Amino acid sequence: MAGAIDGNADVSEQIRRLVAERDGEALAGLLDPMPLSQALRELLLLAPDQRDQAFALVPAALAAELLEEAPNEIAVDLVERMEAERAAEIIDELDSDIQADVIGELDQDDADAILAEMDAEDAADVRRLAAYEDNTAGGLMVAEAFTFRESDTVGAVLRGLASEDDDFERYRGQHPYIVDENGHPIGVVSLRGLLTSKRGAKLTEIMSAPLTVRVATPLDELQDIFSEKPFLGLPVVETDGRLVGVVSRAAVDFAALERAESESLKLQGVVGDEVRSMPLLLRSRRRLAWLSANIVLNIMAASVISAYEETLAAVIAIAVFLPMVSDMSGCSGNQAVAVSMRELSLGLVRPVDAFRVWIKEASVGIINGIVLGILIGIVAWAWKGNPYLGLVIGAALAANTLIAVSIGGVVPLLLKRLGQDPAVASGPLLTIITDMAGFFLVLSLASAMMPLLV
Amino acid sequence: MAGAIDGNADVSEQIRRLVAERDGEALAGLLDPMPLSQALRELLLLAPDQRDQAFALVPAALAAELLEEAPNEIAVDLVERMEAERAAEIIDELDSDIQADVIGELDQDDADAILAEMDAEDAADVRRLAAYEDNTAGGLMVAEAFTFRESDTVGAVLRGLASEDDDFERYRGQHPYIVDENGHPIGVVSLRGLLTSKRGAKLTEIMSAPLTVRVATPLDELQDIFSEKPFLGLPVVETDGRLVGVVSRAAVDFAALERAESESLKLQGVVGDEVRSMPLLLRSRRRLAWLSANIVLNIMAASVISAYEETLAAVIAIAVFLPMVSDMSGCSGNQAVAVSMRELSLGLVRPVDAFRVWIKEASVGIINGIVLGILIGIVAWAWKGNPYLGLVIGAALAANTLIAVSIGGVVPLLLKRLGQDPAVASGPLLTIITDMAGFFLVLSLASAMMPLLV
Repeated sequence: MAGAIDGNADVSEQIRRLVAERDGEALAGLLDPMPLSQALRELLLLAPDQRDQAFALVPAALAAELLEEAPNEIAVDLVERMEAERAAEIIDELDSDIQADVIGELDQDDADAILAEMDAEDAADVRRLAAYEDNTAGGLMVAEAFTFRESDTVGAVLRGLASEDDDFERYRGQHPYIVDENGHPIGVVSLRGLLTSKRGAKLTEIMSAPLTVRVATPLDELQDIFSEKPFLGLPVVETDGRLVGVVSRAAVDFAALERAESESLKLQGVVGDEVRSMPLLLRSRRRLAWLSANIVLNIMAASVISAYEETLAAVIAIAVFLPMVSDMSGCSGNQAVAVSMRELSLGLVRPVDAFRVWIKEASVGIINGIVLGILIGIVAWAWKGNPYLGLVIGAALAANTLIAVSIGGVVPLLLKRLGQDPAVASGPLLTIITDMAGFFLVLSLASAMMPLLV
Repeated sequence: MAGAIDGNADVSEQIRRLVAERDGEALAGLLDPMPLSQALRELLLLAPDQRDQAFALVPAALAAELLEEAPNEIAVDLVERMEAERAAEIIDELDSDIQADVIGELDQDDADAILAEMDAEDAADVRRLAAYEDNTAGGLMVAEAFTFRESDTVGAVLRGLASEDDDFERYRGQHPYIVDENGHPIGVVSLRGLLTSKRGAKLTEIMSAPLTVRVATPLDELQDIFSEKPFLGLPVVETDGRLVGVVSRAAVDFAALERAESESLKLQGVVGDEVRSMPLLLRSRRRLAWLSANIVLNIMAASVISAYEETLAAVIAIAVFLPMVSDMSGCSGNQAVAVSMRELSLGLVRPVDAFRVWIKEASVGIINGIVLGILIGIVAWAWKGNPYLGLVIGAALAANTLIAVSIGGVVPLLLKRLGQDPAVASGPLLTIITDMAGFFLVLSLASAMMPLLV
């Protein structure tokens, strides 16, 4: 058999061969038993056109699972390169929240072409879902809700649950919701209620009032609700009170994980969804965009040094310690940034708490500044044999540590209050301020104490 | 009423007053309607002994919810400060996986005192769970499984589901598992199977073979399984095949989120679970531990500059650009670190892929190095009016960018292969290498071209 898995052969090589042979069945047989992340890794190792062929060859259900596993941007790129008909076939296998995420990020033309190939009702759902903001209940919900009318009985629900209908899978984890004639959710029925009632009982007899969220409810609030309540899903209502979908615990957890990972990337200077299978020039350009902003800030900082060239020329030893002071303060400041980002994400601080955060950071900054200042002061003294050099460097580092943690702690809160993304801008802002302040402190102190240093 | 919520009064002030008045009922009435994160934030604002009193005053169920919301280390600290009896009462309200997390991090004496106050069977479960590794199925599972015998019928399950027993809540989202006389799981029954079968039907007639995981199955693998299968929980078996617990999708998602957040913190130099309500000296000491390692690395880098003091003295303009070259390369390297950390967490690269990652990074490094080198070279030339200075600085930055992205991309994979934590050590390793290389490149090039620079 062409596609039999040979433990010794190189799997990547086999995949390449099966793609070249257009043997979709054997390819699926090879990929299916792998964990999805491994199968995806193998496909991302292929050249782009081989990858396209692989996605065209395997069954739509497997292709859909792989798309779902892929980072969002990769998934969008894969779909954009497919024939519209094939794309529609694969997208049809996804849950409607994922469908909307993918379609929402396509070019309008691509999106229209794919939607035209889909079932009209599904396409309408996707268009509707794609219009909601990311990381809100509307953006995270599925359109399919497990709904019943006021006149329905327990038996109707049990028949729905027991049906072989594929759509049933989409209601996974949902409780039956009862909606009135205006589409407003008026009740929810527990599993226990269903099992302890007669089949002929009206749902309205055993229902309780449902907890609903609005389409605009943000991710943070959804996390709060799910951490307090045991529900696996929550009905989502439009501003007019109509039930328009259900947001699941799993979708909320997944969105929170994606957000945390993307913030971690951004804090390190990677804006966007980079993985290394993306085109070289795209990766290069994106990273450069962030770095070029940094060049400008670095030039500003360097101009501080430039202003003190005479001092430097007189006490060349200072040049040895300049990068050290700026780097050490940068590290201290980054620690404060990280703690603020975490407390923001846990809801333990709000933008209005900036003053309280500053007090807390300044306390750490004073202690750590003094400790680090003494350490580096002793090093400078011992190295050059001049206690005043130690004093200059130590005092500058101590003061700049205090500045760095103050800026690092408070800036994320201020950026958040200004509606900016603290993950992207906190680092560069911190760096420019601590570099300029550090250079200025070292060099101006050295100027003032010049007679003692030379 | 003492505890009535006054929209205008300062909530924090009210909480302080209610704690002082020992009015637990009013305090609970004030905290209960708040989102948990807000209630926790308010309590963390209190002085430590007021906070202890607040946790002693409110109902155990509310205290348990707050503990669960708190970062792990805060929760452990709160429990350690409680009377053993009260701690046992609160811990009893938690799911057994969280119980084990908390108990597992307590001092042995505290843990024993609390376990002694708990129901013997529950205490045994907790001891057992606490022994498993974090971020494995064993460490994430709850001990309570919804199990039935081979002789049981559909009716037995329905009676279990319908019972008012509080324990039922603990089985949330679990399917009924059938275990044989040795405790091995031999079947699982679907909801649909239950609803479409007669009450008298044997479970063995409608069960299918269960997918199980071992206690040692790591978090990554659990994420893979849950992303491929719709299950809300998976039965966990010991090495001898006995069913010992159930790991839920929610527990896996939550652990993945915690891991992502803790990695983001560590990449920025915060090791441990810092939030700002922790004692000042603890926060300060922890941050210093990481920073002191950095001081040593910085001194090593500075010694490179020191070795070239003569060159610097001759061309003092070089001092202006030294921090810029090291900072810019550090940023480029951090981008590579971030992408490697992300690809590791997505399972898109493995430690053995180091060479492939290096090729990918080097390609970006060459392009970005040339672009950044030209930019900064032009700046240096224009600033000092000397094209050779521009050449020295630009070439050094270009080469060092290539070094930085190579190190940044590969180091996390190598650390992982060596069993080290890439999040803690990648940054400092990157910094020392790119600083030393950057200083060396600038200064040795400047030395070589000295006649053209002065």
